[in-house]
Amino acid sequence: MPRPAFLSLDGLDGTGKSTQCRLLVEWLVAQGVPVTACTDPGGTPLGQELRKLLLFGREHRIGTRTEALLFMASRAQLVEEVIRPALARGEVVVSDRFLLANVVYQGHAGGLSPEELWQVGTFATGGAERLEPDLTLVLDLPPEIAAVRRNREADRMEARGADYAERVRAGFRSEVARRTERLRLVDATANVDGVQKIIRGEVAGLLRGRGWNVKE
Amino acid sequence: MPRPAFLSLDGLDGTGKSTQCRLLVEWLVAQGVPVTACTDPGGTPLGQELRKLLLFGREHRIGTRTEALLFMASRAQLVEEVIRPALARGEVVVSDRFLLANVVYQGHAGGLSPEELWQVGTFATGGAERLEPDLTLVLDLPPEIAAVRRNREADRMEARGADYAERVRAGFRSEVARRTERLRLVDATANVDGVQKIIRGEVAGLLRGRGWNVKE
Repeated sequence: MPRPAFLSLDGLDGTGKSTQCRLLVEWLVAQGVPVTACTDPGGTPLGQELRKLLLFGREHRIGTRTEALLFMASRAQLVEEVIRPALARGEVVVSDRFLLANVVYQGHAGGLSPEELWQVGTFATGGAERLEPDLTLVLDLPPEIAAVRRNREADRMEARGADYAERVRAGFRSEVARRTERLRLVDATANVDGVQKIIRGEVAGLLRGRGWNVKE
Repeated sequence: MPRPAFLSLDGLDGTGKSTQCRLLVEWLVAQGVPVTACTDPGGTPLGQELRKLLLFGREHRIGTRTEALLFMASRAQLVEEVIRPALARGEVVVSDRFLLANVVYQGHAGGLSPEELWQVGTFATGGAERLEPDLTLVLDLPPEIAAVRRNREADRMEARGADYAERVRAGFRSEVARRTERLRLVDATANVDGVQKIIRGEVAGLLRGRGWNVKE
């Protein structure tokens, strides 16, 4: 029996993360791998309500710690309601973002302590039995290219400007450098198919090691 | 100049906590002390939305960790939006519940680690510059008496039954025993005026030490 796996994709908005998640899921499904896809924040009915508060609740002037804790609450619910049950069924889970995004956006770029955010994330994802992605692929792109690729109205994150985007990118890169066993940087300058090819290669390596018969 | 102070009242539902908060605030105001009163969870517009989710959001089947994190998010916003500004103006803050309630309800009574909840609470209230009440008065009453005093429809907490209430009471008592410098147990078996007298005595002692001219 192949063993379950928990994968996440992360990176700056505009790196093509959500598109790449969708293509990864389609590829896995086409090969007969049972997949659960989810989005963090969001991914549950409660998470959707919290996501609305976070992205569009500007009238509440949400503080940085409050914001981080709402992301954590949404994630705790996602873990319990969606991810743990899927892994218990033996599936492969693909999450569009996870805890790392909080560590980078509210920590490295937002001024909170990345270490404290990892700790609160441990609490949110199960304490002593915490859940973390077996592999996180971080799509990397210079912020000015990511900005060109985004063509939708600026949300709360995006409204914070170019310096912020630079700090986000640097934060992702520094976390990847420190946690090489579970995090990988993916150069996202290529076109959609090129980037997807790199992602499939990484994922195939992990899944074969867990007994899945996947072909790139 | 008298120095600001942060007070909280806590205890099982039905111990008369909210009534005692109101009487305490009235007494302080009558003596010319500038007071900000607040409620945790709640106390801000965002907190009110989260409070609704927590107390009435049963359709979401909120997990224990999610619940704790939503309380923490509401508290983080309360600290930043209400409590810190009030203390900066030199006022006395009276909060109906605070972090201790999470430690007891979700920790001692709910199965999560009290120590982890204190840690997440440290993050929520400011990290290295965390804010904690200078004095917390814990109203103590046998759960069967508290249950008789409650005459309103059972909310999410109250629906959990007698064993849960016993664990909550024991949790409050054990935290008071471990943190004697900032927590005090108040016997709430007396009538409303009798309990208020004890509370005023404790608060007067603290406030006189901070330069406030208060008479019991």
